[in-house]
Amino acid sequence: MPQTYSYDAYTVSFPKDGVAVVEINRPEALNAFTETMIVDIGRIFEQLSTDSDCRAIVLTGAGDKAFTAGLDIKKANLAGSAEVVDPARKMISELRPMLMKLQNAVTQAEKSLKPVITVLHGYSFGMAIDLSTATDIRVCTEDVKLSVKEVDIGLAADVGSLSRLVKVVGSMSWVKDICFTARVFGAEEALKQGLVSAIYKNKKDALEGALRLAELIASKSPVAVQGSKELLNYSVDHSVEDGLRYTAAWNPGALQTTDIPLAVQGSLTRTKPRFEKL
Amino acid sequence: MPQTYSYDAYTVSFPKDGVAVVEINRPEALNAFTETMIVDIGRIFEQLSTDSDCRAIVLTGAGDKAFTAGLDIKKANLAGSAEVVDPARKMISELRPMLMKLQNAVTQAEKSLKPVITVLHGYSFGMAIDLSTATDIRVCTEDVKLSVKEVDIGLAADVGSLSRLVKVVGSMSWVKDICFTARVFGAEEALKQGLVSAIYKNKKDALEGALRLAELIASKSPVAVQGSKELLNYSVDHSVEDGLRYTAAWNPGALQTTDIPLAVQGSLTRTKPRFEKL
Amino acid sequence: MPQTYSYDAYTVSFPKDGVAVVEINRPEALNAFTETMIVDIGRIFEQLSTDSDCRAIVLTGAGDKAFTAGLDIKKANLAGSAEVVDPARKMISELRPMLMKLQNAVTQAEKSLKPVITVLHGYSFGMAIDLSTATDIRVCTEDVKLSVKEVDIGLAADVGSLSRLVKVVGSMSWVKDICFTARVFGAEEALKQGLVSAIYKNKKDALEGALRLAELIASKSPVAVQGSKELLNYSVDHSVEDGLRYTAAWNPGALQTTDIPLAVQGSLTRTKPRFEKL
Amino acid sequence: MPQTYSYDAYTVSFPKDGVAVVEINRPEALNAFTETMIVDIGRIFEQLSTDSDCRAIVLTGAGDKAFTAGLDIKKANLAGSAEVVDPARKMISELRPMLMKLQNAVTQAEKSLKPVITVLHGYSFGMAIDLSTATDIRVCTEDVKLSVKEVDIGLAADVGSLSRLVKVVGSMSWVKDICFTARVFGAEEALKQGLVSAIYKNKKDALEGALRLAELIASKSPVAVQGSKELLNYSVDHSVEDGLRYTAAWNPGALQTTDIPLAVQGSLTRTKPRFEKL
Amino acid sequence: MPQTYSYDAYTVSFPKDGVAVVEINRPEALNAFTETMIVDIGRIFEQLSTDSDCRAIVLTGAGDKAFTAGLDIKKANLAGSAEVVDPARKMISELRPMLMKLQNAVTQAEKSLKPVITVLHGYSFGMAIDLSTATDIRVCTEDVKLSVKEVDIGLAADVGSLSRLVKVVGSMSWVKDICFTARVFGAEEALKQGLVSAIYKNKKDALEGALRLAELIASKSPVAVQGSKELLNYSVDHSVEDGLRYTAAWNPGALQTTDIPLAVQGSLTRTKPRFEKL
Amino acid sequence: MPQTYSYDAYTVSFPKDGVAVVEINRPEALNAFTETMIVDIGRIFEQLSTDSDCRAIVLTGAGDKAFTAGLDIKKANLAGSAEVVDPARKMISELRPMLMKLQNAVTQAEKSLKPVITVLHGYSFGMAIDLSTATDIRVCTEDVKLSVKEVDIGLAADVGSLSRLVKVVGSMSWVKDICFTARVFGAEEALKQGLVSAIYKNKKDALEGALRLAELIASKSPVAVQGSKELLNYSVDHSVEDGLRYTAAWNPGALQTTDIPLAVQGSLTRTKPRFEKL
Repeated sequence: MPQTYSYDAYTVSFPKDGVAVVEINRPEALNAFTETMIVDIGRIFEQLSTDSDCRAIVLTGAGDKAFTAGLDIKKANLAGSAEVVDPARKMISELRPMLMKLQNAVTQAEKSLKPVITVLHGYSFGMAIDLSTATDIRVCTEDVKLSVKEVDIGLAADVGSLSRLVKVVGSMSWVKDICFTARVFGAEEALKQGLVSAIYKNKKDALEGALRLAELIASKSPVAVQGSKELLNYSVDHSVEDGLRYTAAWNPGALQTTDIPLAVQGSLTRTKPRFEKL
Repeated sequence: MPQTYSYDAYTVSFPKDGVAVVEINRPEALNAFTETMIVDIGRIFEQLSTDSDCRAIVLTGAGDKAFTAGLDIKKANLAGSAEVVDPARKMISELRPMLMKLQNAVTQAEKSLKPVITVLHGYSFGMAIDLSTATDIRVCTEDVKLSVKEVDIGLAADVGSLSRLVKVVGSMSWVKDICFTARVFGAEEALKQGLVSAIYKNKKDALEGALRLAELIASKSPVAVQGSKELLNYSVDHSVEDGLRYTAAWNPGALQTTDIPLAVQGSLTRTKPRFEKL
Repeated sequence: MPQTYSYDAYTVSFPKDGVAVVEINRPEALNAFTETMIVDIGRIFEQLSTDSDCRAIVLTGAGDKAFTAGLDIKKANLAGSAEVVDPARKMISELRPMLMKLQNAVTQAEKSLKPVITVLHGYSFGMAIDLSTATDIRVCTEDVKLSVKEVDIGLAADVGSLSRLVKVVGSMSWVKDICFTARVFGAEEALKQGLVSAIYKNKKDALEGALRLAELIASKSPVAVQGSKELLNYSVDHSVEDGLRYTAAWNPGALQTTDIPLAVQGSLTRTKPRFEKL
Repeated sequence: MPQTYSYDAYTVSFPKDGVAVVEINRPEALNAFTETMIVDIGRIFEQLSTDSDCRAIVLTGAGDKAFTAGLDIKKANLAGSAEVVDPARKMISELRPMLMKLQNAVTQAEKSLKPVITVLHGYSFGMAIDLSTATDIRVCTEDVKLSVKEVDIGLAADVGSLSRLVKVVGSMSWVKDICFTARVFGAEEALKQGLVSAIYKNKKDALEGALRLAELIASKSPVAVQGSKELLNYSVDHSVEDGLRYTAAWNPGALQTTDIPLAVQGSLTRTKPRFEKL
Repeated sequence: MPQTYSYDAYTVSFPKDGVAVVEINRPEALNAFTETMIVDIGRIFEQLSTDSDCRAIVLTGAGDKAFTAGLDIKKANLAGSAEVVDPARKMISELRPMLMKLQNAVTQAEKSLKPVITVLHGYSFGMAIDLSTATDIRVCTEDVKLSVKEVDIGLAADVGSLSRLVKVVGSMSWVKDICFTARVFGAEEALKQGLVSAIYKNKKDALEGALRLAELIASKSPVAVQGSKELLNYSVDHSVEDGLRYTAAWNPGALQTTDIPLAVQGSLTRTKPRFEKL
Repeated sequence: MPQTYSYDAYTVSFPKDGVAVVEINRPEALNAFTETMIVDIGRIFEQLSTDSDCRAIVLTGAGDKAFTAGLDIKKANLAGSAEVVDPARKMISELRPMLMKLQNAVTQAEKSLKPVITVLHGYSFGMAIDLSTATDIRVCTEDVKLSVKEVDIGLAADVGSLSRLVKVVGSMSWVKDICFTARVFGAEEALKQGLVSAIYKNKKDALEGALRLAELIASKSPVAVQGSKELLNYSVDHSVEDGLRYTAAWNPGALQTTDIPLAVQGSLTRTKPRFEKL
């Protein structure tokens, strides 16, 4: 029985076999994130991670103007409640738990073994970077306007951008430039620095491109794809030696899959195998 | 009361509000470094780190010919004193302490929470890489001549280049190429590989560009900027999970800053806030 | 007395002073790897690591068509023997030891202190990535066809590609794209992403280029070059602080080398020193 | 408004100011754990972590016979569902998620900043070790019968015992002895090896002792106590250097607490301060 | 077909079902180790690790006087060959490879998944600590004379004692005391500090005790025991979080073993199951 | 020329050849620490680390009543200056730098390669634990009164106790007990838990015992002793594998010492060698 996805500010659809599209759906506010919305996107990734109909995910924002303008600062309560006056109590009982809740939601995109492709278009500020760097592949439109916006509202980005940018692109000089200045940069720069791996003319093309990529991934052995995601995520955070050791713990179970004879057979006979759900 | 900076081979000035310029000032020797000069640059960064007039730093070299030609090998005593004959004693009581002293000096640029932008021009050999990779942002001139020069004097770079290059650029193939061959490379290659994030026509333009960038950074909330530097430096050396945990220790204190309401207010009213010194 | 290298599917030669060329020599099968061949290449790197006639290594594949088409899937027994039915026993006593044996062989290229340059040409699938990412420098031909092929045969790459790609190139978005899709990509893309550091017109030129590079490296102080390799490999897997500490353990011994006065003298007199074997 | 705690197999009470007692309440089955019960204990720790009425927690088991006999193996489905035949699919989509869910539940005791004291009595097998090693302090009765029981049902302990025993006691020789043999050991041995820090004559005394200890902890500054727990937990998993750096991120916020002047005043005047809730 | 073990200075026997006894057999020299002997003991552990007749190993020394007096300093060439005069060349091409070869041999005891119990009696100096700390469980006789002897011959212990003692016992104050002084200590002290987990009256009793323990371990599910060893060894070197993640990679394969239903059945019916070889 | 040691609150003497005694000398205030005193003890350890007359250090407190009563809370300004009102500015520009300065001072005892033995007697609260856990060996008197006192003044210990206690003793249950309660414990408990490695009847005996131990250490090869300290300190913070690799970087230089032939000769002829200064 297929799962249902019912979230206030999101639309989840399955336009292609095995491919889920998650759309941030608050275009009237440039898809700006409220606290609830951040928690909800975490729930969606968690739910999709156990939905066997889903083998790859595309993340996008509704409307033409923005993937997301970032945190909805009018609704956010960045500094905690006024009644708690002891800075230490505010820190330990309010701000830290709130922060960890938001971090944890964003991290679901990374913890899920299902590959996630983010389509960045229009305004893609703040949370756009936090969220998309927790996903696997980023593509964008020619008109994208990207920014690690947090310093402009007086804070160091804290739901993931700073911890993940240093892992997903190569140039620290560039990362620090964009993080210290909050300057807006475009598609070409994002591609050149490796933040995105493709540029499309417009949102329609980008979405189609992302869907094709998701479909391609969904057509592969899910045992192989999901293992690859876990091993890559582990490896980027550990030494090569540890990466190999973890692989040697994971793969001896995974290699017993029926997908391998199926895939090898397909490869030898040049026919396309169909892999069971996972 | 403003601090004073009096160092033999350096000029420290404050040409813009909140922006310090540190100039290596030994142009007659192509700004080559003596041991004392390395120790002194560490002291300068340490002093600036607690100088509330300083919010961003530009590092440059005097003269047109060189940022620095590297270590002054005529004055360096790379192999320790002749009278110690036991290789182990020479290692433990002479060479290791000397090496750690120099490493420690260079590391001050990284430990300081104030962003540092290095302007590389002309000869930028050896120490130029050691030092600039410990800073945050690197820009260069069209005529820059860069080289990890150490193998050409018979040693593996040991005051930071090898430990930091692998963190600040993405391509290991390129890093090993330049480290094993000590070959000289130019601006375009440095930009393409992400070692620098901008090229300027000449030194004058580069210095102006770096100053503008420094001014921009200095105009942002120093709580936000300095937190961002610390979180990025921590994150590049730790797992994503650890990066998030460290952020959740740091930010709940920093989020209580008065800069946030000020910045949010500025953002909503589209006026430019002025942030207090830090 | 020179060492001899006698391996079924490899030719090892020394065309230049100090430079070894290891050729995968099974062109009739597009240099596809059997299990024995993987073990043997590990032995070759191990042997070369203690061969004082060798200061730099070039790795290439025989024939015009392929560096290697990858694992010889007709001969591979990916899923272990049929008679072991308990999945846990198959995992612990068969697949894990086999996997670790292959990982260990590939890792010899990394553990050896001698720099290794891989020349990728034609089909360079699967094992081509596993093996070449364990070497130091990668160059390729214009016609190279690269692919992290493993998901196409139903498995997550497990002898090194996933653990090393995240360390040798900068863009995680691109790494995940190529690992999840197994798509074939070419020279320009590999160069842009930093997987290779040079493209040559054809195999002949690439081999010559690699040999020149190897010769250049072999002409430098081997104490400096080999120390640089070890320190870079250590640093990519550790924090900057740990990298510096390790350097401060290694270099105080290495700095006592007679190569330094020789190199400094050469540098001051602009003559080319000849360094002793190591 | 006080929180309510309503869980099938647990009783949560607050017998002392600031002290919660969590009782595993399934004595008819020697407090054996079902999967649901493990998930629920995680929820209880999570709920208590944000309950400002709770400053310290005592964990105990109902009845005289057992803290817990361990996993309820009659109800557990250790090997997953029969209908999934592909070993890799069973591994990835069933067993790993189930395992991570249970690990995550147990880990809540560790993640919560509220100190947890476990009272071990009677049969304390398997889950007793998994769970109590995730808590902070362990005390026991003279009649306790402890065992890392997992190998006796054919598996390596996987919800925490193996990962935590090596951190909470000093002797690896002893840890391996008890883990490889699953032998039952008693109070004296547990005390000698540091697994518990106190032995009481019987359950009544042990519970009273634990309550007194919890009360004492609850009387201290909760800012100080909870910070100490977080810093100890971080430090045991990181280098000393990282531990100090994390402390230097955490404490500068916490040191601004109003508890410090209160505590210092109390210390100087030898009066007992009362600290606000956290 | 059973494997054969033929090594000059060792006797390997199988006195009990599934239990191998490795005896250092050079009593005329107090079982002092030559370089070859160290390499050979690594080979023995490697061979036993794939010998399905072996489920647990006892390591002992022939004769009444000594487990081992340590390195045979008359035969050792600690400082390398006289003809290499460059300290850096001696370091890189001679001493480091030799050291890594010896470290690697000792590490085989740890890498093997088969539990190893060391029986320490009489003189147990230097290599006795290096070797036994790489094994899992240590027991000793009342007359044992233990010493980290290396500083007495002018060196810091380098084949494992220093890296492992800090992991296998709890008190750093004690570890540093014995390492800095090389003083001889006895059975009671070793037991109190957790270096050994049992003392026996004499060698005969100790060997019998170790054999009984080995037999007990060998009677358990080898899937469970060997998994436990790997997970404990991984966990002692990683954070709790990493330990749990590694467990969640390893166990989902191992849980599919036929040993679990067999063990559960045995547990429920209180009969002793017989587990298949691994 | 011997170095001179002139510090307000310390006496440094050399009662035995190669042995320095550092005495905290503010008995009228129970040797309580001011901020300056903490900075100064760091300077003393730094100075001794390069004093070739010093091979081992004894740390003690003047007077009969206390090693140290801890931080002088009357003089400490734990919460920073009153004029800084922004909690984030207070955190970043005042409290964190102050904290890091104190941590850094205490860490000098650990960074120095010279072994340090602390003699704990009488009141040994707070800083007594911070400081002594950064030294190598701890001994105490029968009348010692130990306490991790910090929670009693409202803070989590932040100059080292929490980060180091988890490394220097084995039982986490005990560490958390003493850290959460700040209870006073005595010599027997400290010995049992491995915090100290010897108890002496009174201060006079303890000092004599520590001096004898220091003399013994000072009589050994300083190359061996200091290498052992560095390798142990590195190893406790790294994996076994990393520990071995670091050893393989350090020892190949150290093994070339003239101390080894001297020591081996001494060992073979049963004469006591005299080792050169380091």
